[in-house]
Amino acid sequence: MELKENERIDDLGYKQLKIIQNKEGFCFGIDSILLSEFAKQMKDNAKVLDLGTGTGILSILLAEKTKLNKIYGVEIQEQVAEMATRSVQLNHLEHKIEIIHTSILQLEQYLDKGTFDVIVTNPPYKKVNTGLKNENELKLISRHEIKATLIDFIKVSFSMLKDNGCIYMVHRPERLVDLLTELRKYKLEPKIVRFVYSTLDKSPILVLIKAVKNGRSFLKVEKPLIIYQSNGEYTQEILDIYNKK
Amino acid sequence: MELKENERIDDLGYKQLKIIQNKEGFCFGIDSILLSEFAKQMKDNAKVLDLGTGTGILSILLAEKTKLNKIYGVEIQEQVAEMATRSVQLNHLEHKIEIIHTSILQLEQYLDKGTFDVIVTNPPYKKVNTGLKNENELKLISRHEIKATLIDFIKVSFSMLKDNGCIYMVHRPERLVDLLTELRKYKLEPKIVRFVYSTLDKSPILVLIKAVKNGRSFLKVEKPLIIYQSNGEYTQEILDIYNKK
Repeated sequence: MELKENERIDDLGYKQLKIIQNKEGFCFGIDSILLSEFAKQMKDNAKVLDLGTGTGILSILLAEKTKLNKIYGVEIQEQVAEMATRSVQLNHLEHKIEIIHTSILQLEQYLDKGTFDVIVTNPPYKKVNTGLKNENELKLISRHEIKATLIDFIKVSFSMLKDNGCIYMVHRPERLVDLLTELRKYKLEPKIVRFVYSTLDKSPILVLIKAVKNGRSFLKVEKPLIIYQSNGEYTQEILDIYNKK
Repeated sequence: MELKENERIDDLGYKQLKIIQNKEGFCFGIDSILLSEFAKQMKDNAKVLDLGTGTGILSILLAEKTKLNKIYGVEIQEQVAEMATRSVQLNHLEHKIEIIHTSILQLEQYLDKGTFDVIVTNPPYKKVNTGLKNENELKLISRHEIKATLIDFIKVSFSMLKDNGCIYMVHRPERLVDLLTELRKYKLEPKIVRFVYSTLDKSPILVLIKAVKNGRSFLKVEKPLIIYQSNGEYTQEILDIYNKK
């Protein structure tokens, strides 16, 4: 497969999956890998929506890790969506994954409301006007809430999910109050929260959340997901995730 | 000091502090010890309110661990409030601690609104009609939201605190969505959350929360507080807390 300027092909570290990334853009991180592990408990034959798919990594991993029926990856940036489409072809997953180039706010023009079993999303983490802005536009839109806010992601998720459908998301712990408050407000009741720690002597770096549309209130905070042991080596849980090649 | 039927004196494991407990009632647990450690970062000379003080343990520990000016312990159960008053006398802390026998909902008859720097509270964890009910009445009221709900504790805290005053509380992780949602709703913005794990291979057993009246939104989730190592011994952090006798 021919690559465009600044693109490279990376190994996803799972089976033979590969992904095209733009060196100048947002490249996948451990958050997508961990979210795919967290979300893979979804039921078989699910109709799945990946909001803000970026490089397509989450859709590609879930198409392999689960028995989902079909996953739709939505990406607002044309150049990124086109690259994700080529990554789907590279992995021969066209029958499982469809990349849609649109804003999540225009999604109802492409897909039927209230028909999805599962939504997965790794949305932009940062509020507009926070953090460094000396990034190129591709990274900016992937990282900051420029085109859509957290509340937009939550509202669209409620609209697209079936009753009792699930959303799995990854975000930053410092947004936890926003996340839990807004999810509940829009009738996506948080059911499972799991914090991801780089090492145990520091604050968590990520939080994984499962919420259920119109679910009843009862939260399970799971055991910590720890990436590194105190000796600097990966923990067994992380090795297990990466060793399933 | 003379004890009443079913009472005993226990060592608090900190300096020479002791506490009177009723064997048939709610006896203090590690939650009060950990909350006192969490809340001891309060500023010097603080005017402090302990909502639902029970045996008085939290007020007694904080009177020793901090340089607070005065702490008011509020307890709705007459027999328990009277026992707490004797524990204050037992520790010669009458100049620092005043136990008030009333409902938190009637507190404005005793104390001035908007005058407290700090509130500490270890409220009843369980909703009414959940969990086992074959407990005696003393334990029931301490453990279940019979006389006041979580929202009552939060509303009263907002009312009694100064602007930018802090509340430190301990609760159960399964109530985390309720806690963060209601705190924000009543303008007590959660700023620090810390989960307490018995061991790292299980869900957390407690959550410690600091919130600030009219604070801006930014949450810090702290590193885990772990009680037992994998070999079954206390962690260094717990040993440090108990060794400060």
